[in-house]
Amino acid sequence: MNSKLLQEIKDGGGGFLDIFIGKIVLRLIRFLLKFKKNRYDRVVSLGDLFIDRNEKAKFLGFGEGTTIYDNCLVIGEVKVGRYTWIGPSTILDGSGGLEIGDHCNIASGAQIYSHETMFWVLSGGRMEYTRTKTVIGDCCYIGPNTIVSKGVRIGNHCLVGANSLVTSDLDDYSIAAGSPCKIIGKVKIDEKGDVELLMNRV
Amino acid sequence: MNSKLLQEIKDGGGGFLDIFIGKIVLRLIRFLLKFKKNRYDRVVSLGDLFIDRNEKAKFLGFGEGTTIYDNCLVIGEVKVGRYTWIGPSTILDGSGGLEIGDHCNIASGAQIYSHETMFWVLSGGRMEYTRTKTVIGDCCYIGPNTIVSKGVRIGNHCLVGANSLVTSDLDDYSIAAGSPCKIIGKVKIDEKGDVELLMNRV
Amino acid sequence: MNSKLLQEIKDGGGGFLDIFIGKIVLRLIRFLLKFKKNRYDRVVSLGDLFIDRNEKAKFLGFGEGTTIYDNCLVIGEVKVGRYTWIGPSTILDGSGGLEIGDHCNIASGAQIYSHETMFWVLSGGRMEYTRTKTVIGDCCYIGPNTIVSKGVRIGNHCLVGANSLVTSDLDDYSIAAGSPCKIIGKVKIDEKGDVELLMNRV
Repeated sequence: MNSKLLQEIKDGGGGFLDIFIGKIVLRLIRFLLKFKKNRYDRVVSLGDLFIDRNEKAKFLGFGEGTTIYDNCLVIGEVKVGRYTWIGPSTILDGSGGLEIGDHCNIASGAQIYSHETMFWVLSGGRMEYTRTKTVIGDCCYIGPNTIVSKGVRIGNHCLVGANSLVTSDLDDYSIAAGSPCKIIGKVKIDEKGDVELLMNRV
Repeated sequence: MNSKLLQEIKDGGGGFLDIFIGKIVLRLIRFLLKFKKNRYDRVVSLGDLFIDRNEKAKFLGFGEGTTIYDNCLVIGEVKVGRYTWIGPSTILDGSGGLEIGDHCNIASGAQIYSHETMFWVLSGGRMEYTRTKTVIGDCCYIGPNTIVSKGVRIGNHCLVGANSLVTSDLDDYSIAAGSPCKIIGKVKIDEKGDVELLMNRV
Repeated sequence: MNSKLLQEIKDGGGGFLDIFIGKIVLRLIRFLLKFKKNRYDRVVSLGDLFIDRNEKAKFLGFGEGTTIYDNCLVIGEVKVGRYTWIGPSTILDGSGGLEIGDHCNIASGAQIYSHETMFWVLSGGRMEYTRTKTVIGDCCYIGPNTIVSKGVRIGNHCLVGANSLVTSDLDDYSIAAGSPCKIIGKVKIDEKGDVELLMNRV
């Protein structure tokens, strides 16, 4: 995976012991990459080689069946229910409190905030951070690279499209998209439990 | 780089051996950071210190000259041609099949999908994932943080702007941007091979 | 954190020594995760376990009080002032020169460029990269997942919303958002130093 590594350690100033351990770390990376590719049919980042996303979710106290990729920054008090998928390059900010329900999808690059630093930054540190609890219900799809602002409440069975910015509350069954997002339709669930997306006429 | 690390390992519960190995790992990180900064004029993440982006591309079977940063999640069957640059914080999802051509740029934060979980999420796990193959041609620029949905076919020499969402096919030489994206112009290549961007009048 | 790791190393082809070192690395990860959770109330990525964001900023020559998460790709000549927060999944590209002032916030997923590869990609490598210096003043908030293009100059006390694309210069006190971004208001700072956001009428 990195045949130049040992030379780089040497050139960087490493001695015998550094190269010895570097060699083993490199072997570990190779074994794990191969194993995970064969077993799970995916090639993951270094962090995901060493940290299991099921067990990380357990460590965080999240519900059964929930998984979280290594490259998620989890701040403060975050509660997540069962069978929720949390992708890489995400942020779950519970510094003001954050609850996420069951069966959600927090897609890669999505960032859910419960604090806000804008006024702190613009005032050069004079004004304070503000914090408000953020809540996301069950069965919500938060699209890739979507931002949910501090204090927003999203109901159950909501669909928020990719690249969106959610700054106000969403009722159950809302379909929203855009930055800032607008309601563009409604999720309909029939008696069998099947889902239909009813889009607003434009 | 982290003068507090050994104390943190101790405070976390680590013994002599943990501190000994922690010390060496820390030295490796310092050597590699310094080496890569001097040699490549860049300061990379931990994963990119240990995993070479040329060799990772080879491991994945990608073409000659293609590179991929550590923090890319590669799922399933992904084929990538030659001289393509794949940035950090990206997703290449080949669970439904994914082909990317030569000389492309998959900018940082871009996510290319071939499966879709919206209905699975909204129905609480009742409905199934769906999968369709996604194809991106040669010489395509997929902008930073842009999402390409399952099943999309993008031709050759296409330019997709930053923060876009691509949900339908793009012909050769298309310029597209927006979320969802619209065609906003055409790539013109003259007889010498030079590129001009012909933007639509608004 | 990863009870399967040792088995995975074995299944991947690892021998006694690999498992021995793997066991210690796993212990280090567990100690550090626990320590950082208790001390800083956050659960960070593998890279942020081993690399301190204060000391990484010092290594890069950034100003006092500035921090930078591990998963930031820093290219070329980047100068950053004091008390600036640089989030994960970011890019600071100084290959054409990049200066960022004091007290800024480069939110997670934001990417600041000073080079541009579009024409290189679209022409199949025939045309060259272009580079121009990019400058961001003091007390600027660059929102999550926002892209700043090569050569842009952003003044002091500017607010750029989430998911934006900044392709032209912004005067001091600008509020901008959108992709590409438009001016949507003005930052007002009163005699006490308090900040008010004056939004344009739509």
